[in-house]
Amino acid sequence: MKILIVFAHPEPRSLSASLRDVAIHDLEAQGHEVQLSNLYDKGWKSEIDRDDFPTLPAGDRLKVPGSSRGAFDAAALTADVGAEIGKLRWADTLILQFPLWWFSMPAILKGWVDRVYANGFAYGVGEHSDRRWGDRYGEGALAGKRAMLIVTAGGWEEHYAPRGINGPMDDLLFPINHGILHYPGYEVLPPFVVYRADRLDEAGFELVAERLRGRMRTLATTPPLPFRRQNGGDYLIPAMQLRPGLEAPGTAGFALHLTHGDPGKID
Amino acid sequence: MKILIVFAHPEPRSLSASLRDVAIHDLEAQGHEVQLSNLYDKGWKSEIDRDDFPTLPAGDRLKVPGSSRGAFDAAALTADVGAEIGKLRWADTLILQFPLWWFSMPAILKGWVDRVYANGFAYGVGEHSDRRWGDRYGEGALAGKRAMLIVTAGGWEEHYAPRGINGPMDDLLFPINHGILHYPGYEVLPPFVVYRADRLDEAGFELVAERLRGRMRTLATTPPLPFRRQNGGDYLIPAMQLRPGLEAPGTAGFALHLTHGDPGKID
Repeated sequence: MKILIVFAHPEPRSLSASLRDVAIHDLEAQGHEVQLSNLYDKGWKSEIDRDDFPTLPAGDRLKVPGSSRGAFDAAALTADVGAEIGKLRWADTLILQFPLWWFSMPAILKGWVDRVYANGFAYGVGEHSDRRWGDRYGEGALAGKRAMLIVTAGGWEEHYAPRGINGPMDDLLFPINHGILHYPGYEVLPPFVVYRADRLDEAGFELVAERLRGRMRTLATTPPLPFRRQNGGDYLIPAMQLRPGLEAPGTAGFALHLTHGDPGKID
Repeated sequence: MKILIVFAHPEPRSLSASLRDVAIHDLEAQGHEVQLSNLYDKGWKSEIDRDDFPTLPAGDRLKVPGSSRGAFDAAALTADVGAEIGKLRWADTLILQFPLWWFSMPAILKGWVDRVYANGFAYGVGEHSDRRWGDRYGEGALAGKRAMLIVTAGGWEEHYAPRGINGPMDDLLFPINHGILHYPGYEVLPPFVVYRADRLDEAGFELVAERLRGRMRTLATTPPLPFRRQNGGDYLIPAMQLRPGLEAPGTAGFALHLTHGDPGKID
C-alpha cells in the first residue's frame, strides 16, 4: 500500500512524534510505502489568502471558491498545495495525526485542509442536477481510498463518552471524519484515539504503541465507519435530507448519517 | 456594552466584511464601544509553536499545556496573545465572525483560539477535587460575559437541517459554542447564520443585514443557549457524565448538554 501521513505537532520529541514513528516503522516493515507531510517541520502556511491564487488579477475580489476553481482549472495552484494534492492522489490510504486542541485539529492542519482541498479537486466535482448533487460523501476524487485519524487527547476517556461533558468523541470527530474525509470520497476507518496523552508513562506508551501497530496491520481490512453515500438512495435530492424511516427509532443528530443503527441492516 | 469582534475573512470587500461593518455601525449607533480583531488584516500567526513561549529554555521539550501555563504565570506570553487576552477581559460580549470552511472555522481563527486560550486563563482554572472539576463549562475567567457566532455558509439551509446530509448546524457548531465559548465561562447566544452566502443579491443582502441589526440590538436580552453548567449538579464528579434520567427520552449526543428538552424545565 501507499500511505500518506499528515502530521501536525510542533515538538519533535512529543508523544505524538513517537507514535508517528511507531506507525511509520511498522508500515515500512510490512513493505508499504510511506510519505510524511510534517506540517510544522515544513513551515506549512495555514492561512488561505490572495497569495494562494497567483493568477487572480490584482483588482479582483478574492472569492475563495471561485478563485480556487480558477487556479485549479488553470493548474495555477501554489507549489506547496500542488505537491500535497499529488500525494493525496498517490496514496491509497491517508492518515491525519494530531493532538485534539479545543475539540478539533490544530490550526496548521485546518490550514492544510483549507488550502489543499481545492474547488474542482475536493469539492465542486461531478454532475449537479435534479438526480445528483455532485460527487461527494462517498464519491469524488478520493473515492476508493481509505483514511483514518490518529488523535491524542489530554482529557479523560469518560469525559468523551456518550454522556460525557465534552460530548462523545465520535460526534466531535464527525465534522472531520464525515465532512473532511468522507466528503471527497474516502472510506473512513474508526479513529485511533489516545486519552490522557500527557500522563503516559513508559509502560503505558508501550501498550498504546502495540495497539497502534495492530491498527497499522489491519489498515486494509478494518471495516470503515458505515457512513451513508449521498447518491446511494438514502437522501432526497436536491433537499439532501435523509429519507424518513430509515434509521432506528430515537436516532438523531450526526448518528443519522451512519447505517449501523438501521433496522434490518447488517454492517 | 463593550464588544469585541474577532473577524476572519481574507477579502476586505467580502460579504463577511460588509456584514461586519453593518454590525459595528449598528452597535456604535447604540452607543456601545466596539473593538475589532481583524485577524487577516493584522497578519495573525496561526500556529502555536516554541516562539509562543520565549522563556522556555532551548533544550526543554515543548509541552503545550505546561509551556503555556509557565508563560501565563510568568506574564511572558507574546505581545499579540497578551493583547487579545486584554481585549477578552475588557469586553462583556465577544463575537466571532467567520465563513464556515469544511464545517468549522478558518485556520487563522482556530489559531487565535489555540494561542490566546492560555493555560491558567481559559483552562486549568479553579479547584480540582472530588467535588469540583475546575471552573469550566459555565464558570471560569470569562463567566458573566456573553458570546455569539456570526457564520456565513455557502451551502443550502436544508442541507444543515436536523436530517440534512451535512449534519445539523447546531451540532456542527457545538464544538465551538460549547467547547470554545461555554468552556471558559461565556453564556452563548444562538448563532447568526447566513446560508448560500455566495449567492446573495442586493435585496437579499439588505434582508440579512436587517436581521443582523436585530440581533445586535438584542445582544443583552437574547436568551442564551441553555448549556448545562458543569458544577451545577447535573454531572457526576469526577466522571463528568450526565446523571441518568435528566433528559427527555430519546435525547442523545450533543443535545444532552442543553436543558431545553428536560422534562419539567421551563427555558
